[in-house]
Amino acid sequence: QSPAVEAGRQKAQMCAACHGPLGLGSAPDAPHLAGQPEIYLAAQLKAFRSGVRRHEQMNVMAKALSDEDIAALAAWYASLKIEVQPPR
Amino acid sequence: QSPAVEAGRQKAQMCAACHGPLGLGSAPDAPHLAGQPEIYLAAQLKAFRSGVRRHEQMNVMAKALSDEDIAALAAWYASLKIEVQPPR
Repeated sequence: QSPAVEAGRQKAQMCAACHGPLGLGSAPDAPHLAGQPEIYLAAQLKAFRSGVRRHEQMNVMAKALSDEDIAALAAWYASLKIEVQPPR
Repeated sequence: QSPAVEAGRQKAQMCAACHGPLGLGSAPDAPHLAGQPEIYLAAQLKAFRSGVRRHEQMNVMAKALSDEDIAALAAWYASLKIEVQPPR
């Protein structure tokens, strides 16, 4: 794994409570992050950090993130490959 | 499938260009919707519709959606089960 992915894996431990250890969360109002596009993830974290996108917890969580943290978290979650099962 | 899921599947054809036919998109700045929690999906579509959450295309797309459309789209995408592969 790349250093960014590994750094992201470490950093993501603080996200696991809502988003799950591998990015599949259990909270009904928290999105699954596993496999999301890296660019999308980084853009959302920056929007939460700046407040352009508003969410009580996420604005607080993102406030503490540096650009490196954001890049690492995006790399980590994007590295988790997901598959969708066709509907039955 | 429930009527809401079927209605959502139909309605989602207009979303497939960015979000993919089964909710796994190809656009780097568009999230995968497959398997996302129903409550989260509905809340985001309403935020895009009201403008609380800002995105050029999504604010336009969501403007045309009724509450029933939103419930159906959320039910459809949430019905698509996803699995994550543990990191190699």
